Amino acid sequence: MKLILLSGGSGNRLWPLSNSSRSKQFLKVLRNKDKQVESMVQRIWSQIKSSGLADDTFISTSSTQVDILQSQIGSNIPLIVEPVRRDTFPAIALAAVYLNSKMKVPLNEMICVLPVDSFVEDSFFLRIKEMETSLSQSGADLALIGTPPSYPSEKYGYIIPNENKEGETNNLFRTVKRFVEKPDEELAKQLIQENALWNCGVFAFTLGYMTSILKEKGMPIQYEELVKQYDKLPMISFDYEVVENVNRAVVLSYNSSWKDLGTWNTLTEEMDLHLLGRGIISNSINTHIINELDIPVIALGLLDIVVACSPDGILISEKAMSSKLKDVMKNIKQRPMYEERRWGSYKVLDYTVNENKEEVLTKKIKVLSGKNLSYQFHQQRKEIWSITAGEGIFVLDGNFVHVGPGDNLMIPFASKHAIKAITDLEFIEVQLGSNLIEEDIVRIFMTWEEIEQNLSN
Amino acid sequence: MKLILLSGGSGNRLWPLSNSSRSKQFLKVLRNKDKQVESMVQRIWSQIKSSGLADDTFISTSSTQVDILQSQIGSNIPLIVEPVRRDTFPAIALAAVYLNSKMKVPLNEMICVLPVDSFVEDSFFLRIKEMETSLSQSGADLALIGTPPSYPSEKYGYIIPNENKEGETNNLFRTVKRFVEKPDEELAKQLIQENALWNCGVFAFTLGYMTSILKEKGMPIQYEELVKQYDKLPMISFDYEVVENVNRAVVLSYNSSWKDLGTWNTLTEEMDLHLLGRGIISNSINTHIINELDIPVIALGLLDIVVACSPDGILISEKAMSSKLKDVMKNIKQRPMYEERRWGSYKVLDYTVNENKEEVLTKKIKVLSGKNLSYQFHQQRKEIWSITAGEGIFVLDGNFVHVGPGDNLMIPFASKHAIKAITDLEFIEVQLGSNLIEEDIVRIFMTWEEIEQNLSN
Repeated sequence: MKLILLSGGSGNRLWPLSNSSRSKQFLKVLRNKDKQVESMVQRIWSQIKSSGLADDTFISTSSTQVDILQSQIGSNIPLIVEPVRRDTFPAIALAAVYLNSKMKVPLNEMICVLPVDSFVEDSFFLRIKEMETSLSQSGADLALIGTPPSYPSEKYGYIIPNENKEGETNNLFRTVKRFVEKPDEELAKQLIQENALWNCGVFAFTLGYMTSILKEKGMPIQYEELVKQYDKLPMISFDYEVVENVNRAVVLSYNSSWKDLGTWNTLTEEMDLHLLGRGIISNSINTHIINELDIPVIALGLLDIVVACSPDGILISEKAMSSKLKDVMKNIKQRPMYEERRWGSYKVLDYTVNENKEEVLTKKIKVLSGKNLSYQFHQQRKEIWSITAGEGIFVLDGNFVHVGPGDNLMIPFASKHAIKAITDLEFIEVQLGSNLIEEDIVRIFMTWEEIEQNLSN
Repeated sequence: MKLILLSGGSGNRLWPLSNSSRSKQFLKVLRNKDKQVESMVQRIWSQIKSSGLADDTFISTSSTQVDILQSQIGSNIPLIVEPVRRDTFPAIALAAVYLNSKMKVPLNEMICVLPVDSFVEDSFFLRIKEMETSLSQSGADLALIGTPPSYPSEKYGYIIPNENKEGETNNLFRTVKRFVEKPDEELAKQLIQENALWNCGVFAFTLGYMTSILKEKGMPIQYEELVKQYDKLPMISFDYEVVENVNRAVVLSYNSSWKDLGTWNTLTEEMDLHLLGRGIISNSINTHIINELDIPVIALGLLDIVVACSPDGILISEKAMSSKLKDVMKNIKQRPMYEERRWGSYKVLDYTVNENKEEVLTKKIKVLSGKNLSYQFHQQRKEIWSITAGEGIFVLDGNFVHVGPGDNLMIPFASKHAIKAITDLEFIEVQLGSNLIEEDIVRIFMTWEEIEQNLSN
């Protein structure tokens, strides 16, 4: 079997800690067994490793997540990178085609797709391993994992299984009678009476099943070809495009804790630390502070409140109300103020427009020891860098210079520049110009070694 | 009469908007009749002007408040500046001695002392004017203003007046029977039965009365002499040192609204805007946001909550609980992150310590058009300035240079420097060194004109 870990898109439901560049799975708000802070990605990756599935795992992701994924779980895990963001059907199709045409995985091998933000116990991975036997024993097209509902939720998918026939004693799986997506509470109660399970969003099928579906739909099953057409694929979910039309499906029951940590309400239930970051919680009940800012947060006399602070903004929400955040966020438009990258991270400290209508953006940039910013230039801005910590090598239009704290670097419009950190390097960058966005970067594709060789000659 | 406006000390009760450099009276959270945002100082100063008392008004303050006072109400109001912070008795003594020995105010003239954070109706100033007649008619040493209590508060002072004697029809004032400071609720209820009034903190007396008290206590009544001894004066309040020992006092009754805006609870009651700054309040009741940061604040599903954000920190408090803030704040130690000065303002953007144990402080500095930073040097830090907006003249060790956006200025250790804004000027300052505090400034006392003349020769 091959495991595809689906590292899903960005979203505002955990704003201000999630944004268009930081998805909820990267937030370090949980704690592992050693009481170290970890993210959902780090948690599930360590579970995959201890279940022995790591060597068969691929991560389906978008290019915007590559840096942060590698910084959180290392760079040895093979990634299948979507050229643009689509929904789960195109992403799973791309992964299947990649395994088939690039990795030469045989068509009878089972592929299991698992959302990266599944918050489950270790025993969940035993069920995942049993999907292989279930699929071959049952001859079904699709295997799923369901968990007994704890309340008649209106926001999950329900799987209604057939009762075992008289005399049947299959404890591994049951066949699926039907699916119901997000029922109202009344219907959900009925479904629970019928022994329905919540759909955990795990899909297992043979690679051959998936490629036959693609062929039917006239989609290419050759990787480069699918990549080329990728931006024209419909934004449609795997549930809708495949699961609801499947002939035979089986469901395995998982009876331990399964949680969707998609809102501040559910996420804070899993946070044993009530205060992350600087602050004080006083005279308060069931209140959480997650503070990524450098300034202190004081909570006084609060009940059932979550406070989340990041360079993007500040949220104070009654916990049950936090599910409405997505709607409120429609009124907020803002660039991300903090991003983690392969080479380090940056934080926006200040943004203004001066009287000449020139934009001014001040950032604090950290480059990790041994990493470098790519050789690049900007069309519409000049930059001033003040080195504040560490040592590095700076190159400007072919001239190399060793830099350290107190050094000051002027980068005119269209000047090619890069920097490599010898030790962890920090600098304050002041950008002046127009259109001060990440996209005004013209990258000259060279490794640091190539820069040194090419320019030193 | 002379009016002494007592611009009191800093405090944490309105943290994070008040701090050791910004006192609550300077917060621009109220609105005037034209719906313009104003501070308590601006409000009371406009009331003093419209009551015709402006020309007879002096402000008693500390040196730390001079810049912000002048920036908020102009620089024409005479200030009596305490050399160090003491309590109200030394401050009033200094003001009296100043009026006597410097301004030659006659000893029979009435001095009226008024706290700058009195939140009152305009009619309050009619009572202040009537204190002069009351004092002379009654022959009392002290006149006060009292207001009918609205509830048996435990945090105010109470003035218990004598009943008018039979046949007496004095509507202007009554004589004072006794004072009670901060009674418990039971006693407060009794006092209200006795027609007690809350003490509004206004004191009127003749200059001669005050100088005689100082002489009795062996204190100098010559201004320079008192300044010299000022830091040795006891930190004691005027209430305790004078009011409680007075022989004859009268009280004038003021029957309109009087409020102490000293906690977030009472202050927000006077704020008709629920949102100041960037943010959204959704599904919330009786909730206020005061946001001085550049990032948005979202409040969702809150009841009776105040949210206050400044570069110093973030407070989220249930309103009634906000009176406990002072106690909680004892655990927070931090430099002020934002200050308003005579020449403009600064905001701390970032503070770190690098691997060489060198401190790095990044500030955004605004210098108002026509103003300048004093000619100065630093013993323990170098600075890098990146000009981001406006035009100015920069001088470094005697060399003048015209600067504008994109210019970059290096200021080595111990180099003398200053800058003057031609138009409103902004720059990002990166300080590197040790002991990065405001106090590491050696000022060379010269006006900008003197700098230009001395250095151009």
